[in-house]
Amino acid sequence: MAGNSFGQLFRITTFGESHGEAIGVIIDGCPSQLTVDLEYIQSELDKRRPGQSKITTQRKESDTVKILSGVFEGKTTGTPIAMLIPNEDQRSKDYTHNVDVFRPSHADYTYQTKYGIRDHRGGGRSSARETAARVAAGALAKLLLKSQGIEIVAHVSSVGKINAPNVDISDVQEFINQREENIVRCADPATAEEMIEFIDGIRKAGDTVGGKISCYVKNCPVGLGEPVFDKLHAELGKAMLSINAVHGFEFGSGFAGSEMLGSEHNDIFVKNHTGDITTITNYSGGIQGGISNGMPIEFKVAFKPVATIMKAQATIDSEGNAAEISGKGRHDPCVVPRAVVIVEAMAALVLADHWLRNRNAILG
Amino acid sequence: MAGNSFGQLFRITTFGESHGEAIGVIIDGCPSQLTVDLEYIQSELDKRRPGQSKITTQRKESDTVKILSGVFEGKTTGTPIAMLIPNEDQRSKDYTHNVDVFRPSHADYTYQTKYGIRDHRGGGRSSARETAARVAAGALAKLLLKSQGIEIVAHVSSVGKINAPNVDISDVQEFINQREENIVRCADPATAEEMIEFIDGIRKAGDTVGGKISCYVKNCPVGLGEPVFDKLHAELGKAMLSINAVHGFEFGSGFAGSEMLGSEHNDIFVKNHTGDITTITNYSGGIQGGISNGMPIEFKVAFKPVATIMKAQATIDSEGNAAEISGKGRHDPCVVPRAVVIVEAMAALVLADHWLRNRNAILG
Amino acid sequence: MAGNSFGQLFRITTFGESHGEAIGVIIDGCPSQLTVDLEYIQSELDKRRPGQSKITTQRKESDTVKILSGVFEGKTTGTPIAMLIPNEDQRSKDYTHNVDVFRPSHADYTYQTKYGIRDHRGGGRSSARETAARVAAGALAKLLLKSQGIEIVAHVSSVGKINAPNVDISDVQEFINQREENIVRCADPATAEEMIEFIDGIRKAGDTVGGKISCYVKNCPVGLGEPVFDKLHAELGKAMLSINAVHGFEFGSGFAGSEMLGSEHNDIFVKNHTGDITTITNYSGGIQGGISNGMPIEFKVAFKPVATIMKAQATIDSEGNAAEISGKGRHDPCVVPRAVVIVEAMAALVLADHWLRNRNAILG
Amino acid sequence: MAGNSFGQLFRITTFGESHGEAIGVIIDGCPSQLTVDLEYIQSELDKRRPGQSKITTQRKESDTVKILSGVFEGKTTGTPIAMLIPNEDQRSKDYTHNVDVFRPSHADYTYQTKYGIRDHRGGGRSSARETAARVAAGALAKLLLKSQGIEIVAHVSSVGKINAPNVDISDVQEFINQREENIVRCADPATAEEMIEFIDGIRKAGDTVGGKISCYVKNCPVGLGEPVFDKLHAELGKAMLSINAVHGFEFGSGFAGSEMLGSEHNDIFVKNHTGDITTITNYSGGIQGGISNGMPIEFKVAFKPVATIMKAQATIDSEGNAAEISGKGRHDPCVVPRAVVIVEAMAALVLADHWLRNRNAILG
Repeated sequence: MAGNSFGQLFRITTFGESHGEAIGVIIDGCPSQLTVDLEYIQSELDKRRPGQSKITTQRKESDTVKILSGVFEGKTTGTPIAMLIPNEDQRSKDYTHNVDVFRPSHADYTYQTKYGIRDHRGGGRSSARETAARVAAGALAKLLLKSQGIEIVAHVSSVGKINAPNVDISDVQEFINQREENIVRCADPATAEEMIEFIDGIRKAGDTVGGKISCYVKNCPVGLGEPVFDKLHAELGKAMLSINAVHGFEFGSGFAGSEMLGSEHNDIFVKNHTGDITTITNYSGGIQGGISNGMPIEFKVAFKPVATIMKAQATIDSEGNAAEISGKGRHDPCVVPRAVVIVEAMAALVLADHWLRNRNAILG
Repeated sequence: MAGNSFGQLFRITTFGESHGEAIGVIIDGCPSQLTVDLEYIQSELDKRRPGQSKITTQRKESDTVKILSGVFEGKTTGTPIAMLIPNEDQRSKDYTHNVDVFRPSHADYTYQTKYGIRDHRGGGRSSARETAARVAAGALAKLLLKSQGIEIVAHVSSVGKINAPNVDISDVQEFINQREENIVRCADPATAEEMIEFIDGIRKAGDTVGGKISCYVKNCPVGLGEPVFDKLHAELGKAMLSINAVHGFEFGSGFAGSEMLGSEHNDIFVKNHTGDITTITNYSGGIQGGISNGMPIEFKVAFKPVATIMKAQATIDSEGNAAEISGKGRHDPCVVPRAVVIVEAMAALVLADHWLRNRNAILG
Repeated sequence: MAGNSFGQLFRITTFGESHGEAIGVIIDGCPSQLTVDLEYIQSELDKRRPGQSKITTQRKESDTVKILSGVFEGKTTGTPIAMLIPNEDQRSKDYTHNVDVFRPSHADYTYQTKYGIRDHRGGGRSSARETAARVAAGALAKLLLKSQGIEIVAHVSSVGKINAPNVDISDVQEFINQREENIVRCADPATAEEMIEFIDGIRKAGDTVGGKISCYVKNCPVGLGEPVFDKLHAELGKAMLSINAVHGFEFGSGFAGSEMLGSEHNDIFVKNHTGDITTITNYSGGIQGGISNGMPIEFKVAFKPVATIMKAQATIDSEGNAAEISGKGRHDPCVVPRAVVIVEAMAALVLADHWLRNRNAILG
Repeated sequence: MAGNSFGQLFRITTFGESHGEAIGVIIDGCPSQLTVDLEYIQSELDKRRPGQSKITTQRKESDTVKILSGVFEGKTTGTPIAMLIPNEDQRSKDYTHNVDVFRPSHADYTYQTKYGIRDHRGGGRSSARETAARVAAGALAKLLLKSQGIEIVAHVSSVGKINAPNVDISDVQEFINQREENIVRCADPATAEEMIEFIDGIRKAGDTVGGKISCYVKNCPVGLGEPVFDKLHAELGKAMLSINAVHGFEFGSGFAGSEMLGSEHNDIFVKNHTGDITTITNYSGGIQGGISNGMPIEFKVAFKPVATIMKAQATIDSEGNAAEISGKGRHDPCVVPRAVVIVEAMAALVLADHWLRNRNAILG
């Protein structure tokens, strides 16, 4: 129960520290006979990789993934799939400054107090480097979902106070193409430009800023989600909140919905021309009673600003004495551009798990 | 993996439908030798009970809880604790109208499609009546936490667009007294009055409205939460999102934090006059790296408006034909006053579970 | 993780003490649309019921089961199924003698030391009365398995040193009829008579004796079992060893197989006249590599003699002082006749769980 | 729920196939601050290593283990510990013969049918090579237990029909020394010689033979085990039955106990001269009501003969046609000498898990 596993039937267990030998993941419960496209998995990791643009950390990691087990002649065999990502560019000396000092709004103090010991190099296990393992596993989950026609896409919808307008997601590939054309990963080109300029200024000032990611699941069949505790949105919420720096989650109407009247908010059912049951509005965000209703699933994730800034800050040392610290190491001025693929990966892990779980809903 | 259990070490499993014989819960993993105050448990249920004021549903349920096992001579024995709450006032005939019709923004359609069968009476398992079992179990979790000095309090901070100002939580009992003096359960008396008036108007109009609940955990020791997936706020988030009608969760700086700069947002550590390590601000909401840091834990939960309104609405029947429906049964115009104790209960279940889990962090 | 749940997908959680208000079980994960034959469930409980013959305990319990949730119009709905069995004949005063004294080979001492408190009445949670909840849940699992053509049968194959010869299981109903014709539940009539006489003598002498139960699963499809830890026989073994008084488990060739040569022991595959793949011998007991191979599953369970005897025995009290104790209460001279249906129930729970788990082996 | 994890709080997840790149394990839930003796872990693996004597397989694997995470400056940090063992001597071509043919009493047929695909090289995931990961993790569990004074030892007590007399376990180190002096790992020197000669004859005949391992846990505190389903012996039983080739498990009086009378079998409590509560006999095998009682835990594990023999055998191919097969590859004539350390490892995993679980029995 130590918290490093996620999912019930499509279950991952991750390991690894920022400056250890390697990070990795075991996926247990992936059904057999799924075709494994290793290039696709690597391409997903490349979207999270450090050093990919001027607005990300300059740490150099190729994040090359290797599959050690569970795949035979290009297909899953039903046995556990281990994936390994060696660490390459560990400048541990960058972290001698925080051996005895607790960085503000980092996990140094809580890890040290909880465990009485911590790998201080680069945040150790609390580093966002850990999310590379999630992206690798999430890429496999996406392949499973794609084989069923289910697609997941996200983009940066806000940076600081800059908000993108609603973007059309009817053509998923088009949406992704648009998003990948800019380094901030916002699917609205004009807003993207504004965001990049803003982040670059923040970076030069040695500061950081937060942002939001919007995510959509398309072609999700009706029936995913297991009430009463494992409601689909509750599981998505947990998945998102488990990502480093996330401080908020909402789906469908979200926080704004709490200000609405029932008569405005209710999504009226209709049968559309193809005979499918849909709703006119989608304030439910594709989930009713904790179960997907066939409409697009929509949710939003809020990220706080990165805690490591290049400015001097007051803090205390491990004895509780006043100290000063200023950021060293190589860090992101804004985490959301690299987090888009993490959000998608965690969503894919939830959806793959619930797709499997739902196969046993009816005796059939 | 069917979703009716919550927690790992302090683990509950609930059962029961709105109009069945009874609802209930088994708590497995409560340590032995906890004194069980049955009156306290009942008093918590009374706060969730229907029919308690003019702004709640008029269904009459005493919600009398009975402990069937696991308690001997007033103390827990370490064996599973079963609690039973019989259903009393099941006017099932109120629900003949939705046998073949899907109520908008309810779970009728998704349950019917997922399982191919549903208990249509009062929403069956999807009814918020299910949360009574959570409140009973949560009351026991609160007793466990209280024995360790940990306290959890919540109140209604918003109804529709009416927002309460920040309320002082330094004296928890005072806060609760204030809150319990009004039927909307807002600890700010002036705002409470405004909210009550607004809800009463909504009720008379046959409509419903959403709202928000703010929750605080005080005297939480440092160390609770299990990275990387079972971060304390991720578990709280899942717990809250699993409550009926919840559409959003944020902790600490929350969504607003995503608009801030790192230099503003970082919580600076200081040693206070009693020698405790605290932070000047608390944008982290009492949790850093997924682990409690000793500061008050603060989070907010957004509830959508209740779906059952007393107005005619368009919908479809089980054949997909257009139909009309108008609310019958007895429902709440606004769910948040009764949900305060549900939010507290779910928070208590998470905290009790993590308090137990954290006991094994260090070999010791 | 407190040990009162069993199974992963077809998951039960039991509660209740020997002399509390009631015992019961929640089944979570039973798929929807299974027809629930309550009479059948009750008839299974009747086979475990005390007081059914001269060679069982004379405690009077009707063991009437009531379903509180999860079943609607005679079918499962996919929501949790709670079953309740009230305790009726609790002569708690029979147990005043063991408040402060530890009965030999009972769980008094270990419960008291582990939890620091125990419900001493009739063994509390450690009483075999708890198995009634397993039988109720197991009966539902049997209904699920029967809907798939899978059948489970057991009988008493040994009492003390009296061993039944191998019995034909080709006609399951015939086998059960034979078994139910005698009170010891051995399918070989001649041996049954001998066993009954022996047990009756033991009873009159105030003593008890052990025995063995042989169990068979027929028409099990190929593929059930989840290597490497949840091998089908490992799960069956745990299930059986969790039953009160069980001290040993073997499947297929079992302990005798450890004395054989590979050239004797290997089960040679053949295609039979109906085109099915079978093996000539079945030393594998229907399971290879932890996965069912389509042959009958065969295993044997060894029960120690009941610890409560009607003779004076030396022991110690809670202060560690020497004391004497002699059995009061109403107990079985030999547990196996009533345990046959418990063995079947636990086997059914394992099989139902793995039948569901196996549905996700292949992406399909 | 795919079966590759074991344990609840001290939880391992293994991966890897016989002829893949590597095998390995993640341990999640090991408390922080345990000193990790890597040499000890390697020395345990050396006892399972192939090629160690004339009576084991001649496959050459150094089984060198590498720790990738979770250990910092020689101590556990509370984060997941990944261990990797690369495969070195994979003569995959030895296995071209079983691509399309099902080896008798192997898992070829069941894996192929369950998953529709299998890694046929050396048994893939069903190979006993997988147990190396268990031994590595079990060695860490032993270190944890040793830090609490708990010791686990096993030896080969039978090979075929050759049985060792009862061996004194009062001095654990002495027992181990005795055992390690011979290649069959029986602590009785005279019997060991007889066993070795017998196995060598079997090997020369191209045949194989089964055997039994007896295991003892010393200094186990009272209280380990979680009724009613996770009784300590039920968990030990599952652990043992999950080891390749195991067909039977018994503890305490075991199968023989089923032939005894209650008046013979009951273990009488006494307070010994040091004030400890013990029992005169130990038919309970150190466990009462599923909870350890402070006496030595004793159990026995039966292994069937290895299925791969060097003789021609009839079988069928994947089309169901009659075929012939004769063993190639490098295999053990008798598995028990190398399995001693596997039995100890699995016992250690159960004990470490339950030692952690028991820490939460009492509120304290």
